[in-house]
Amino acid sequence: MPANVPTYASLFADHARRLSQSHLRTLIADPARGARLRHRAGPLLLDLSRQKLDVPALDALGAQLDASGWQAARDAMFAGDPINTSEGRAVLHTALRAGGSSLPSPAPSEAQREIEATLARMGELVDAVHDGRQEALGLPGTVTDIVNIGIGGSDLGPRLAVAALAPFRTPKVRSHFLTNVDGQAAYDLINRLDPRTTLVVMVSKTFTTQETLLNGNVLRGWISEACNGDERAVARHFLAVSANTEVAGSWGVPLRQIFPMWDFVGGRYSLWSAVGLSLALAIGMQGFRAVLAGGAHMDDHFRSAPWQQNLPALLALTEIWNRDVLGYPTRAVVPYADLLGDLPSYLQQLEMESLGKSVTPQGAPVGQPTVPVVWGSVGTNAQHAYFQALHQGTEVVPLDLIGIVNPAHPLHGNHDALLSNLLAQAAALALGKTFDEALAESPADRTLAAQRTFPGDRPSSVLLLDALTPESLGALIALYEHKVFLLGHLWGINAFDQWGVELGKSIARQILPALRGESSDVPPLDAATSASIGAIRERRS
Amino acid sequence: MPANVPTYASLFADHARRLSQSHLRTLIADPARGARLRHRAGPLLLDLSRQKLDVPALDALGAQLDASGWQAARDAMFAGDPINTSEGRAVLHTALRAGGSSLPSPAPSEAQREIEATLARMGELVDAVHDGRQEALGLPGTVTDIVNIGIGGSDLGPRLAVAALAPFRTPKVRSHFLTNVDGQAAYDLINRLDPRTTLVVMVSKTFTTQETLLNGNVLRGWISEACNGDERAVARHFLAVSANTEVAGSWGVPLRQIFPMWDFVGGRYSLWSAVGLSLALAIGMQGFRAVLAGGAHMDDHFRSAPWQQNLPALLALTEIWNRDVLGYPTRAVVPYADLLGDLPSYLQQLEMESLGKSVTPQGAPVGQPTVPVVWGSVGTNAQHAYFQALHQGTEVVPLDLIGIVNPAHPLHGNHDALLSNLLAQAAALALGKTFDEALAESPADRTLAAQRTFPGDRPSSVLLLDALTPESLGALIALYEHKVFLLGHLWGINAFDQWGVELGKSIARQILPALRGESSDVPPLDAATSASIGAIRERRS
Repeated sequence: MPANVPTYASLFADHARRLSQSHLRTLIADPARGARLRHRAGPLLLDLSRQKLDVPALDALGAQLDASGWQAARDAMFAGDPINTSEGRAVLHTALRAGGSSLPSPAPSEAQREIEATLARMGELVDAVHDGRQEALGLPGTVTDIVNIGIGGSDLGPRLAVAALAPFRTPKVRSHFLTNVDGQAAYDLINRLDPRTTLVVMVSKTFTTQETLLNGNVLRGWISEACNGDERAVARHFLAVSANTEVAGSWGVPLRQIFPMWDFVGGRYSLWSAVGLSLALAIGMQGFRAVLAGGAHMDDHFRSAPWQQNLPALLALTEIWNRDVLGYPTRAVVPYADLLGDLPSYLQQLEMESLGKSVTPQGAPVGQPTVPVVWGSVGTNAQHAYFQALHQGTEVVPLDLIGIVNPAHPLHGNHDALLSNLLAQAAALALGKTFDEALAESPADRTLAAQRTFPGDRPSSVLLLDALTPESLGALIALYEHKVFLLGHLWGINAFDQWGVELGKSIARQILPALRGESSDVPPLDAATSASIGAIRERRS
Repeated sequence: MPANVPTYASLFADHARRLSQSHLRTLIADPARGARLRHRAGPLLLDLSRQKLDVPALDALGAQLDASGWQAARDAMFAGDPINTSEGRAVLHTALRAGGSSLPSPAPSEAQREIEATLARMGELVDAVHDGRQEALGLPGTVTDIVNIGIGGSDLGPRLAVAALAPFRTPKVRSHFLTNVDGQAAYDLINRLDPRTTLVVMVSKTFTTQETLLNGNVLRGWISEACNGDERAVARHFLAVSANTEVAGSWGVPLRQIFPMWDFVGGRYSLWSAVGLSLALAIGMQGFRAVLAGGAHMDDHFRSAPWQQNLPALLALTEIWNRDVLGYPTRAVVPYADLLGDLPSYLQQLEMESLGKSVTPQGAPVGQPTVPVVWGSVGTNAQHAYFQALHQGTEVVPLDLIGIVNPAHPLHGNHDALLSNLLAQAAALALGKTFDEALAESPADRTLAAQRTFPGDRPSSVLLLDALTPESLGALIALYEHKVFLLGHLWGINAFDQWGVELGKSIARQILPALRGESSDVPPLDAATSASIGAIRERRS
């Protein structure tokens, strides 16, 4: 939507006005709503019946989507058109998983060939490690621990999936993620692991990422010490995933141990590529291919279902409604599953880095709110932390509540309690409790009744997975990816660049020498920064 | 502030209007600002010079605070007046650490005696475990692992502190936190640990918390199996921290293994009490007392400094400014320290459960926004995830950036990079980059320059700790506690109750039997809940 057309707030103002007359308590009492607001795609059931929407409002949103040419935009992405215009790049993360699709892939055949060749190389490596044959590939004779060094998109995807699929992990290797430039993490790791049996996967598209190189150097020094400085022995411990083979090679990773990244895959969409190597090493290549297949099934759904049954479309329209029409500035993601503990962080990146923009690709102001703040953490823990504010605070926070029908453990009493809490929170947020209901519980005390009143009328989506498997996890991630794609389309912004991360990096390069006291020719810093540097240097012991 | 007096937005509208004419870039160029906006309390330096404030606005806020009678309200809390009016309770978490204070404690002497007696009992236990003498106290002969079972305030405080103080932990025992009713966590734990050498600390004020009892039962069954059902042997493995000695005892914890909680300490303020037992077991009693002393030093500061230098007061006024006057709905907490990874979650509970209210203790609407959504995660990781939206999104998010001057590890290259990033983000958010500056970098491309423009003018606070020690951690937590106290006072809400957590619990009790299919006499549920239960039961394998 170009910036000079009406905002969604104005387009749908009549629907918002009509719905402001109805409490969610009334809306959800209608069992017929479910037929339009509850839809399944494979192992995922999306239930929007507790959103502050009705069918006329939904139809108006859907008509707007259809008028936007979303199918053509979607097909352009799948076909590899250069839709990331600011960088002149195609956006082909869907091609990475196209092997599991039942629709023909329109992606360029050259990309498809490179992808298949890389999957084959990954499979060779993963199978060798799982069979203990990795020495033949130039790696150490024994591998007990794998350390993924990467940050952002080179960390969050594998980290999420390795944790979520813990019940599918091989006991043969342990997985670790070294992310932050904070030396504490690297220091703890080298004090816990054995350098002789540790394999390091360096993941950086450019192979210039400050955090990854600093941590890589720390681990290389540690392994080098164990190898008495034998460079060839050290090199056996390092794999790399990078688009910059040359720099990775000169850093010390042998060519045959470098796996490619491509310009047509953005970091936050790269789990499906060789960036998923740590995941494949953790769950095996069959499991990794099942994750890809789950994503591909969601791709097929996204490519074939009309908006009325299309889960990514329904999620995107709900966000337009909550963010732009009702004006809610945040959305919380609350998985009722410890295994999905990293999902809020993952979606935070996927959504906020993709959609945290305020100008169109043509450089015009976007003219309405774009991405909300995405936050959250697992339930029921969250109920005992910040749900107080969700129920009785002054800010309305729409929620994505995510549950798993069948657990991967035998403690069914716990699991029933878990799911009953999920549904109870969705109900309590929607229904609320009136002052009169509260007063009936403590008739003598109107003041207490006021404290025990809940406004209700607070929306949530409920997303149920039949079970948490490689397939359903793949589908879940692809669902949100496509939601993000549609929101980029509907807001008229490029969801695939990230210019906003550059300025801080360039200022950090100016600050570092000043902080070290090497600053004779540093460009002048602002007064606040100079004062902070002085305060740090003064307190250094 | 009662609800019928002017809102802060209206009170300070003139200041907001004046400041809207000045970009932060201009404001922070004035080095003189620091004298009023940068203040130290012990090991903590708070720098507000990058807030969108000037001295006249700050003075107006401070005058309002002084007019509010904050000192009298503060003194009433320290003295044990029943300021938690809806529950008729005193609020005496400060008394728990008063032993480290240099000001005389005004807390009731009976409470002080109970606190000291409990600290003495904790010390006896902790010393025994650290010296391997715990069998004499009725505990197992060997203890290798300690599992804290608790949720909310019975989990987040010890969890935060045990992680933050990792460099101070004893190698003699490992600490684990079992929180969620999701059976996955309990199942994983009992598959990893040895029941014969595991000590379980059950933490629940009422000893009726669903999650804690379900998990406690799972661990008791597991230990019982290892003890061949010998109840007396099983009981040796359990400690409890509870106000409900009777129920804890009948659940199976011997009386002498039960430590008290009190009505005058709320869950989210309870780390300083026996709820900190897991922390004391991890870092020793001397370390635990150092945490208390750090809190007490902040108490002394809060009780003695005028608002102009009072860190809790300055943080609270900044929040009133950002939340109510400038209207920002969220605040992000970004510690540049992996060891403080749990701080955002901890503060989320502390602030959102305390201040997520919309009626006064008299039952009147509060009439203006109260707590913002508090969210965040560690930097630099966050820079590679959601900082794109902080720099170029449509929503302004004030930040608390927290750094540690002296690390607990020798990797100084990493640490310098870490701190330079913290300062660089604060600078980039404040300064921004104009279109003309961006155009100068890519003169031929106005469209690209628009993508590379940063509005700046985005506020942050920088909080530096000299080092992360038990003392500075205690001071940091107490700082935020007192900030919350002042905000409750300024918004006219009770920061010490949490009625908003009740409704979901009571609905969950109704849903559980229906989910299990035992629902013949369940009260009718709303149509959305019924449909969800049907969907779950249909997909159960």
